[in-house]
Amino acid sequence: MLKKNYLLAPGPTPVPINVLLAGAKDTIHHRTPEFVSIMESTLEKAKMLFQTKEKVYCLIASGTGAMETCVVNTVAPGDKVIVVDGGKFGERWAKVCKSYRINHVAHQMEWGTAPSGELVAELLAKDSAIDTVIVTHCETSTAAAADLQAIAEVTRRRDCLLVVDGITSVGALPVRMDEWGVDVVVTSSQKALMTPPGLGFVAVSERAWKRIDSFASPALYLCLKAYRQGFPTQDHPYTPAITLLRGLQVALRMMREEGMENIWRRTATLARATRAAVEAMGLRVFARNPSDSLTAVLLPEGFDEPTFRRRLREEYGILVAGGQDQLKGRIFRINHMGYVDATDTLGAIAAFEMLLSDMGHSFPLGAGVAAAMQAAKES
Amino acid sequence: MLKKNYLLAPGPTPVPINVLLAGAKDTIHHRTPEFVSIMESTLEKAKMLFQTKEKVYCLIASGTGAMETCVVNTVAPGDKVIVVDGGKFGERWAKVCKSYRINHVAHQMEWGTAPSGELVAELLAKDSAIDTVIVTHCETSTAAAADLQAIAEVTRRRDCLLVVDGITSVGALPVRMDEWGVDVVVTSSQKALMTPPGLGFVAVSERAWKRIDSFASPALYLCLKAYRQGFPTQDHPYTPAITLLRGLQVALRMMREEGMENIWRRTATLARATRAAVEAMGLRVFARNPSDSLTAVLLPEGFDEPTFRRRLREEYGILVAGGQDQLKGRIFRINHMGYVDATDTLGAIAAFEMLLSDMGHSFPLGAGVAAAMQAAKES
Repeated sequence: MLKKNYLLAPGPTPVPINVLLAGAKDTIHHRTPEFVSIMESTLEKAKMLFQTKEKVYCLIASGTGAMETCVVNTVAPGDKVIVVDGGKFGERWAKVCKSYRINHVAHQMEWGTAPSGELVAELLAKDSAIDTVIVTHCETSTAAAADLQAIAEVTRRRDCLLVVDGITSVGALPVRMDEWGVDVVVTSSQKALMTPPGLGFVAVSERAWKRIDSFASPALYLCLKAYRQGFPTQDHPYTPAITLLRGLQVALRMMREEGMENIWRRTATLARATRAAVEAMGLRVFARNPSDSLTAVLLPEGFDEPTFRRRLREEYGILVAGGQDQLKGRIFRINHMGYVDATDTLGAIAAFEMLLSDMGHSFPLGAGVAAAMQAAKES
Repeated sequence: MLKKNYLLAPGPTPVPINVLLAGAKDTIHHRTPEFVSIMESTLEKAKMLFQTKEKVYCLIASGTGAMETCVVNTVAPGDKVIVVDGGKFGERWAKVCKSYRINHVAHQMEWGTAPSGELVAELLAKDSAIDTVIVTHCETSTAAAADLQAIAEVTRRRDCLLVVDGITSVGALPVRMDEWGVDVVVTSSQKALMTPPGLGFVAVSERAWKRIDSFASPALYLCLKAYRQGFPTQDHPYTPAITLLRGLQVALRMMREEGMENIWRRTATLARATRAAVEAMGLRVFARNPSDSLTAVLLPEGFDEPTFRRRLREEYGILVAGGQDQLKGRIFRINHMGYVDATDTLGAIAAFEMLLSDMGHSFPLGAGVAAAMQAAKES
């Protein structure tokens, strides 16, 4: 039977054909008025993703490169950092800090949990030297989401900088940088932004700029000062990823038309429907603080996860992600960010049902989809 | 009159439509057998660009990011570096070294000249502490090319690492990494590789790997060890730029079909023809050691360069680059790398003639194109 491709891993996510085709347009030079105007209007639109009035900076880098940008620019010599580490990507912040020999405390959390305001307040109370807090808004490896607003309240009170990995949150979950008082938020193109991988984004508060301006960054390519210099003419310090930016222009236009509040609502609805389906199929959502941007589904003990994902791909054309490290073989992860709709998601849930049932997991066939539809209707 | 677009600046260079369309294909995930096989075969083909048997590493980064990768990986604490700086991009190497507080001597050369083997031998003789030499093969800001083979002979004799900016040389000028004994060569996608900007490449000798393995790189994202770990499964440590790599696959297939020797010959022929035209139009080639990958044309004293380039764009659809810093307003630069052929180049020379003559520069109309054709015929 014909099988289409359903890319439902939490990034790279599907890219709309109009975004892809925009990247296939005639090559233009980056120092032309035509490209400068694309860059300007696109980065202006990118502010809505972070709900900020501040400028958003765009680099050629993967998410990790964008995370490193935050650290090398905002952690000055003498600063002390807390990294809240609840999974693979929290761990990565600690790795970046270690690479640059930054004075940091990595607070390890149980995988599947995510930091609250209280936790960050406790951590800060223990050590008066801390002036920078780094958290992961949504931890992609566990699909757990932190309470960013509450954390920002705490860091504001203490006058700490709050640096946030928003890679699987920005554009999918509400992030209100200015209102909440978040200082640095990083994201990348291949998640909620419906654009191919290759672009990293950093939004920076005025407070963070004061820190950045107070010392020389130990890196050149990722130094934000060089990017700021280009404004307002957007004269990029290095050759920008022209074709990806052309795609982004179209993607952000689509996002503006749908509206951020509507996008957040859609994402939340798909997540809620998926979680309802998971329970109805007799499985469990892994995260204790589940994110709306993706769902990690805990499989029954001893279930043959590699075969499940292989057959899902081969028989249904659906690609979901497996677990990483300690979660390998125990969970699979399905994406709700970006170019995903109800039909995609309900179809995928039906495929999960067919295959789970075929592989001997017992539950009333149809219960997952029914629960998902009910949850979607109630949203 | 209809005007097509002729992108003749020295990067980004024109991208063939089949390369662009390959980037517009259905999005795939990077941890699938399909993508891993694209990555493997493409990086295998990339070896021909450097004429090396060693693995070529590909990162999401601009050329500057790729340059920084070389420095943070190969310059260990205690090492001492000579940077040969003959223009804007030589200067950039020094900036990278400065950012990382690396013990380095920047040897400034007159713009338009390029280092010879003798020069590097002299510099090395002066300071026995030097163990790393960084040179720019072709200095894009002046269009001057260094004698890389002779320099490599010198650094081999002294057992220094030789690190090379090959951004406007690899894929256009002969670079025989293994044969000449060059240690690290960096390039990027948007020059001779006919691919949109966004990918950086680093080829690394066994000798260089010994150095890299001897210390912990002060960076994470640009740390080459993480990329090597992925081999041979090519399991990329971070999300790769999937669409750009799909484009690259097609571009390298085209390059392999044409053959590296033929590409080098074509590039040299276009450069020779252009230089002949420049002289015949009563102008001068700026560089004393002209590169074949691009030509910098010195305009007559007092000539209105901004108007020349603006009219070239508006009336002929041709985009060439101006001069940078001390060369601003004095030169323009035309590209010979990548997807450029004789018709493009002869057409552009004719446009230069029309406009130069219209702007009051006196020379026999047609002399430029005639000289170019003659030079091309003799190549």
